[in-house]
Amino acid sequence: MLDELWQRRRGLVEETLRLELDRTPSLNQTLFDAMEYSLMSGGKRLRPILLMAAADAIDGSGEKFLTTAAAIEMIHTYSLIHDDLPAMDDDDYRRGKLTNHKVFGEATAILAGDALLTLAFEVMLRQEGVAASTMLRVVNEFARAAGSAGMVGGQAIDLQSEGKTITLEELRCMHMGKTGALFRASVRSGAILAGATEDQLAALTEYAEQFGLAFQITDDVLDFVGDEQMLGKPTGSDARNQKSTYVTLTSIDSARKLAEQTIDGAVESLSAFGTEAEFLRELVRYLISRNN
Amino acid sequence: MLDELWQRRRGLVEETLRLELDRTPSLNQTLFDAMEYSLMSGGKRLRPILLMAAADAIDGSGEKFLTTAAAIEMIHTYSLIHDDLPAMDDDDYRRGKLTNHKVFGEATAILAGDALLTLAFEVMLRQEGVAASTMLRVVNEFARAAGSAGMVGGQAIDLQSEGKTITLEELRCMHMGKTGALFRASVRSGAILAGATEDQLAALTEYAEQFGLAFQITDDVLDFVGDEQMLGKPTGSDARNQKSTYVTLTSIDSARKLAEQTIDGAVESLSAFGTEAEFLRELVRYLISRNN
Repeated sequence: MLDELWQRRRGLVEETLRLELDRTPSLNQTLFDAMEYSLMSGGKRLRPILLMAAADAIDGSGEKFLTTAAAIEMIHTYSLIHDDLPAMDDDDYRRGKLTNHKVFGEATAILAGDALLTLAFEVMLRQEGVAASTMLRVVNEFARAAGSAGMVGGQAIDLQSEGKTITLEELRCMHMGKTGALFRASVRSGAILAGATEDQLAALTEYAEQFGLAFQITDDVLDFVGDEQMLGKPTGSDARNQKSTYVTLTSIDSARKLAEQTIDGAVESLSAFGTEAEFLRELVRYLISRNN
Repeated sequence: MLDELWQRRRGLVEETLRLELDRTPSLNQTLFDAMEYSLMSGGKRLRPILLMAAADAIDGSGEKFLTTAAAIEMIHTYSLIHDDLPAMDDDDYRRGKLTNHKVFGEATAILAGDALLTLAFEVMLRQEGVAASTMLRVVNEFARAAGSAGMVGGQAIDLQSEGKTITLEELRCMHMGKTGALFRASVRSGAILAGATEDQLAALTEYAEQFGLAFQITDDVLDFVGDEQMLGKPTGSDARNQKSTYVTLTSIDSARKLAEQTIDGAVESLSAFGTEAEFLRELVRYLISRNN
């Protein structure tokens, strides 16, 4: 089920991203090209997939919310462009392609990120079939998750932690912001759009937090053991950059075990749901088996 | 009337910015400090003032919308931080103080800008006393104005125009994006929040577009003739950076005349309004007389 549904929906997300990008006027062609370059460069589209899977768990309505799902991918893409900048992680490659600033220059890359973040808010308002008050809740979820209490806040901690040894608790806090907040907003937004009860929302929030944690631990494991070609980016870069990870702060075996426990925890948080949440269960189990 | 009301409302904007910043959690103190440094560093708060003045013109309700007014100042501040970056205009000073990246470093400055843009969307949702459907319209105004069809798009044109001579029409298009779009969104949002009719909104939109144009022409005049100390930033920098301006593309006399005509046009667009729009009239007339 996982592969088939994922591929089908990934195709729908690609189509929606294309559509929403093309209906967006740009005063400048180079800026548009830079936005398109990173937005349409593939990727698993994991956050849109999660948003739709959460809506499915409530009432099977996942594919109704493709527009909002595409918006969250724009936020994710903007964060990758800015993270790769010379002043930040200074990466030359992303998903096997040159990073945005290597192709378009640093200034245009900064602007392309800025424009994609802004566009995300414009695009989510194009979502049809949702009450205005519900849409405002979703805008708020995204804004909080992307900002200083979430993604950007986590990135700031990351910046200041380079070359330092931090505690496991600090590492967890950093990742809850840097990657966890957007996973959480994806799942919660899908649930809110589909009309989740407070109990359902709480259960899915717990799932999302465990998912985010499992994602990061397995990412650290992959970085440590991964094969460069398979990942499409240099591996072992965390160790080279002297970054603290779940592997460097514990051990590869401990990190693997923690990942398994966290995945079990995510599955348990879905105990009140039946088969309608099966895709969510498969998504978190996939994390341990992935090789990219 | 102008000075007194402006100062009073500027004080209210400062208080609101302080309040909204302090109620925003940040995962990282340095990031918060960087956001605060630029946001609370003074400035005329012209965009919030315009938003409130437009609401006044409809029903005298300007001060009801301080929260939204503060949000637009966050978007403006983010744009200044990113514009000043080494990869962009590479400015060391802003309003007589070191620019954000000179104090906090380039990476943190990028993140502080990102976080302020995101926070703007969170803060405008805190606006009370507005129907959800109206608030969605306002979010849309801001998102469009700040993105690739507006501010960021104009900045991209600016980047690619440096060292080139462009036509007056290209210059106008660049500034309609770079500075005009946010003025337009400020005025339109104030009008929408106060419940403007379509006719009123059209008239105020015309005013805002003329205002934006007049602002830019007078800014170019000031840059050419201004006194460094009076402005708190180096002057004549446009000529040094080989940037096309209304002065370099025409002449100082032509630019001054064009500014006067544009200001007259802005005042004329308010002909259907009575004394309730007097503040808007004074605001655009102020542009020609300002010295900073």
